[in-house]
Amino acid sequence: MPTITAVEVVDLRFPTSATLDGSDAMNPDGDYSAAYVILRTDASEVTGYGLTFTIGRGTDLVVAAARQIARPLVGRDVGEVASNLGPVYRELTADSQMRWLGPEKGVVHLAAAAVLNACWDLAARRAGKPLWRFVCDLTPAEFVDACDFRYLTDVITPEEARQTLERLLPTREARVAELLDSGYPAYTTSPGWLGYSDEKLRRLCREAVAEGWEHVKLKVGADVDDDVRRLGIAREELGPGRTLMIDANQVWDVPQAIDWVRRLAPFGPRWIEEPTSPDDVLGHAEIRRAVAPVGVATGEHAHNRVMFKQLLQAGAIDFCQIDSCRLASLNEVLPVLLMAAKFGVPVCPHAGGVGLCEFVQHLSIIDYVCVSGSLDGRVIEYVDHLHEHFTDPVKVVGGRYLVPSLPGYSAEIYDASIERYRYPDGDYWRQALAPAGSLAGAAEAN
Amino acid sequence: MPTITAVEVVDLRFPTSATLDGSDAMNPDGDYSAAYVILRTDASEVTGYGLTFTIGRGTDLVVAAARQIARPLVGRDVGEVASNLGPVYRELTADSQMRWLGPEKGVVHLAAAAVLNACWDLAARRAGKPLWRFVCDLTPAEFVDACDFRYLTDVITPEEARQTLERLLPTREARVAELLDSGYPAYTTSPGWLGYSDEKLRRLCREAVAEGWEHVKLKVGADVDDDVRRLGIAREELGPGRTLMIDANQVWDVPQAIDWVRRLAPFGPRWIEEPTSPDDVLGHAEIRRAVAPVGVATGEHAHNRVMFKQLLQAGAIDFCQIDSCRLASLNEVLPVLLMAAKFGVPVCPHAGGVGLCEFVQHLSIIDYVCVSGSLDGRVIEYVDHLHEHFTDPVKVVGGRYLVPSLPGYSAEIYDASIERYRYPDGDYWRQALAPAGSLAGAAEAN
Repeated sequence: MPTITAVEVVDLRFPTSATLDGSDAMNPDGDYSAAYVILRTDASEVTGYGLTFTIGRGTDLVVAAARQIARPLVGRDVGEVASNLGPVYRELTADSQMRWLGPEKGVVHLAAAAVLNACWDLAARRAGKPLWRFVCDLTPAEFVDACDFRYLTDVITPEEARQTLERLLPTREARVAELLDSGYPAYTTSPGWLGYSDEKLRRLCREAVAEGWEHVKLKVGADVDDDVRRLGIAREELGPGRTLMIDANQVWDVPQAIDWVRRLAPFGPRWIEEPTSPDDVLGHAEIRRAVAPVGVATGEHAHNRVMFKQLLQAGAIDFCQIDSCRLASLNEVLPVLLMAAKFGVPVCPHAGGVGLCEFVQHLSIIDYVCVSGSLDGRVIEYVDHLHEHFTDPVKVVGGRYLVPSLPGYSAEIYDASIERYRYPDGDYWRQALAPAGSLAGAAEAN
Repeated sequence: MPTITAVEVVDLRFPTSATLDGSDAMNPDGDYSAAYVILRTDASEVTGYGLTFTIGRGTDLVVAAARQIARPLVGRDVGEVASNLGPVYRELTADSQMRWLGPEKGVVHLAAAAVLNACWDLAARRAGKPLWRFVCDLTPAEFVDACDFRYLTDVITPEEARQTLERLLPTREARVAELLDSGYPAYTTSPGWLGYSDEKLRRLCREAVAEGWEHVKLKVGADVDDDVRRLGIAREELGPGRTLMIDANQVWDVPQAIDWVRRLAPFGPRWIEEPTSPDDVLGHAEIRRAVAPVGVATGEHAHNRVMFKQLLQAGAIDFCQIDSCRLASLNEVLPVLLMAAKFGVPVCPHAGGVGLCEFVQHLSIIDYVCVSGSLDGRVIEYVDHLHEHFTDPVKVVGGRYLVPSLPGYSAEIYDASIERYRYPDGDYWRQALAPAGSLAGAAEAN
């Protein structure tokens, strides 16, 4: 009976602001970061790894919150945790004093996501299965038990969810075989960061086409004339047949979003992503009505299942962009998949950052195999950053994610990366933060 | 030219869980707490005090966030800060790396509220005026400059806001005189905490009537039969003429809220407060349609101005319950007052906790004098807890708040209270947390 013996939470920061990788209209200079959770056990072969994605300052707050939230796990039987992920979720998110600081949003919710991602990873590793397989092997009743339906029952009940899952149960394995054979469709955001020059944008679009990408996303929203020019370059390189998406990262008010997107509509973007505040359900609905046939996509900052419920109820989105770390792990993601399927809205997860691609590939597979049974309009975001730090990085070939095969949720990071990028005392940061002229600074300069 | 020389942030926790003061269906055992901010200057007569209200665990997270957010204030000229509260707000909330952890919600937003409350306090003290007077002396243009209209312009523009303020400008002083004469109407929540026995409830209701209260609020939502019995007791004591409100603190799903409130409707509650998730704008709208003529009130957990915009747009609320610490100080409160006035929805602030009554009296005065020009349906919450720790506590007589007269935002706490309740090293906590049998514990027992 292995036991969870310790929880370690690491503040990990990669200095991405130096290269403007990841630059957008709202976030010009993020240092892609993570609150990284390790659940140690006394069985050396079983460990749980999870994280939530942050972009620099404040990661320490999420780390501190995760340590507090994870505390009840220490001393618990691994098997008991692994086979009760619904109750474990409810227990870890039920502290009313911590709940006051959200509720179910912000630092405490991001921290809950990191801890629960590690619990799901632990459960899948214990079963010797990749997470998607672990979930696809759950019965409909077990799947439903893992879901948080609180505040959702006006739109979906556990019983209705169970019926949806039962209906698709007999054909699950056919879809698994299809994905193992041909992978899951993806799109790339790598060419389109706002900090890149026109030349770099053109070159990266051309390379993307050569690599087989059918869908490419560009950041927009800093300057409309620049955007017109950049979309022109992208459309030239992509040709009329490939899909172009655009992403404003919340910079506009509603009327401004409508005007700006109409200026860009001639380039035929499939969707405008995050046109305004992520909290503005009604604003997204208004924008959607005004800019059709350009679709509206949002969700990477939708902070919990209740926001997704409303985005779907209000007819505010054409594409549902769940985030594997802003929602509190699968316990909250699975009911969103169920609601999106009910409303016929395709789920296209947000990814990039640190580990998000690694996580969301599992979620899209679960969506297709167990919940929606459809690939129509579905693509997973792909960004070619920081995968080298993961022991089981995503494999993307010809614009498609290959199905992961190793046990777990693919979130384990190499010890060497932790030693280098732990903040503030990893090798990189000790030298970067050292006062100029100090010994450490001099060593780096040499 | 006095300068801000240091920012101190204190983790302050009052052990209220011991008495079940403040117990409700979602928060059975809060320890009323605060992240308390002190802006020190090199002019000994000018200091700024602010806080945000929390309920125990996790206050350390808000304290850490506030320290980080307040850092740019150190070294700044007090006069420059005091006369640029709009730009200061934008600067302190503009760090994109910290914004990622919300955005504009949760721990980082609560922390911003604490810091900005202290900035407004500093500005009012420097002017030698109570905060409400400081704001009522702003020109409409200055008032508008202090507001954050981002994401609101589809509902209200700065120009429209200025016109509203101009219209009421000539009559401001008449309303000030009226409030100085008769105070601002209030309601009491003190009788109705869920942890109280029927006998205590009856006694406290009877005392409230004797003290002149016309409006009393009860917590509900733990058990419907208990609620029927408790409302019966309250209505008996209040008689048919006084106003009864009920508060569920988010415990219900939408369908359950509708059923439960219909059971309690015969007791004639004016409003049901927080019937469901604070994020569920559309859910509140549905509940409101279903339970009329019982009104719907919410807002103490509405995490920013965008949520209030939607609650108003969707026709989801009859009463707008701003919170002085969940919104990022007056910069975010003032535009909510303006929107509520535009939609004709009365603002009835959430209070209680630590310092909330002290803060919101200023906000309701500003609402009446500058923004809405009306007292119809308006009442400020009052709870008789913890005022003894404040140097300028609220004065409530005959069910009305008296207008505060000392300079500032009324949030200064006595040093002795800080020394006793600072967590974990104040006198109270050192003894309470000491291992049983230790010297400190023994001293407490004696």
